[in-house]
Amino acid sequence: MVFILDKSSQVTIHTLQRMPYYLQVLQKAEARGVKTISAVTIADELGMNSVLVRKEIAAVSTRSGKPKAGFEVAPLIRDIEDYMGFNNEKKTVIVGAGSLGRALLGNSEFSEYGIHIVAAFDVSDAVIGRKINGIEVYPVEDLEKYCTDNSIPIGIITTPVSAAQRVADALVRGGVKAIWNFAQTILNVPEGTLVQNENLASSLVLLSRHINK
Amino acid sequence: MVFILDKSSQVTIHTLQRMPYYLQVLQKAEARGVKTISAVTIADELGMNSVLVRKEIAAVSTRSGKPKAGFEVAPLIRDIEDYMGFNNEKKTVIVGAGSLGRALLGNSEFSEYGIHIVAAFDVSDAVIGRKINGIEVYPVEDLEKYCTDNSIPIGIITTPVSAAQRVADALVRGGVKAIWNFAQTILNVPEGTLVQNENLASSLVLLSRHINK
Repeated sequence: MVFILDKSSQVTIHTLQRMPYYLQVLQKAEARGVKTISAVTIADELGMNSVLVRKEIAAVSTRSGKPKAGFEVAPLIRDIEDYMGFNNEKKTVIVGAGSLGRALLGNSEFSEYGIHIVAAFDVSDAVIGRKINGIEVYPVEDLEKYCTDNSIPIGIITTPVSAAQRVADALVRGGVKAIWNFAQTILNVPEGTLVQNENLASSLVLLSRHINK
Repeated sequence: MVFILDKSSQVTIHTLQRMPYYLQVLQKAEARGVKTISAVTIADELGMNSVLVRKEIAAVSTRSGKPKAGFEVAPLIRDIEDYMGFNNEKKTVIVGAGSLGRALLGNSEFSEYGIHIVAAFDVSDAVIGRKINGIEVYPVEDLEKYCTDNSIPIGIITTPVSAAQRVADALVRGGVKAIWNFAQTILNVPEGTLVQNENLASSLVLLSRHINK
C-alpha cells in the first residue's frame, strides 16, 4: 500500500509548525524576566490572530491563561517542549550522504527536538567510514541489520530516485515505522509504515505562485 | 509586520504538493502508450481517494474526464505543468552557501519547476568566487544591487539566525517579493513581502509523534 501523508487531515501540523516560534517568543520573554504573557502579546510578536494563539496554546497545554495577566511563561515553555517531544529521544538513520543528506546531518536543530541521527548510510566508498558532523557513514548493505540491532524507529531517505524503493524496503525489514522521503518518487510500504514525502520544490512553487497573483 | 504564511489558509497547498505525484503517474501511463486514465486508477496508484483525485484535478484543469474512459493523459499533463508554472521562469537567489545552501543549489528539481537559482551569496572568502553546481557565489555586500539590477522576485535564506534579518532587509531593499526562510527566526518584513518559514525539524517531529501514537 502506498500511503501519502495527507497534511490536510492532520489537525496539528500547522500548530506544530508554529510551536518553534511560540517558544522563541516565550524564551525571549523569560530572558527579560517576564513571568506572564498574554495571548495578544504573543500574537502581536508573531503577526498572528490572538484567537488562534489561544486555541493553539490550548491544544498543547492544559494551562488556561489568567484573565488580564495571561499565561505563566515558564510552565508554558515546559508544556510546549513536552508536546514537541524534546524530552523523548528518537533515534533516526539517514540514507544517502550526498549534499542534502549532509545538510540534514549538520542540522543541529533536530537534536533540540529530541531527534538524534545516529548513523548515515551510503553506497560510495568516498564517504563510507568517514564521519560527518560526528556521525559515521556505513555501507548501505548494513542498513537493515543496523536498524534491527538498534531498534531504529525513523529513517530518512535522501538517495536518488532509483535507489529509494530498495532503501525503503531495507528500512521496513529493519523495523522502521516512519520514513521521511526526500526522493521524488512514490514508495511502496506495508500498512502500518508511515511515509512523509518532502518536496522542497513545491514550497518554492507555492511562493512563486503567490507573487504572481 | 511579521507575516507567517499560514498554510492552513492556503486551499491549494495540499493539492500543489500532490501534483508532482499525479504527474509521475500520468507520465508513466503516457510512456506505456495509455491515452486516457480514470480518477480511480490514479487514486489506486497513489493510495488516495478517487473523490479527492477528481476534485484536485478539477482545481488545476478545466478538462472534465469522460464517463468511463476518464481523463486524456497528454492534455492533463500540460495543464498540470502550466498550473505548476513550469513554463513561467522565476529567478531566485540563495543567501548562505553552507551545507543546506549547497544542497538547494544542487537540487535539479527546482529548474524542472521553472525556478532558476541564478546566484548565491555568502560572507566566506572560502566560497566567494567559486561556482557550486554552475552557480557563482558572490559576496553578500553585492546582494541588494544584484537583486535590483536583475529584478529578482524570490530570495532563499539559509544563513545562521544571527545574519537572517540583515539579509532579509537587503533582499527587501533589492525588490524581492517573496522569501523562503530556513533560518529559525522570525523575520520583520514590510507589508507586501511574503515570508515562508521552513522548519525541517518540525516535519520530523510530526513523524515521530505519529509513531508514538
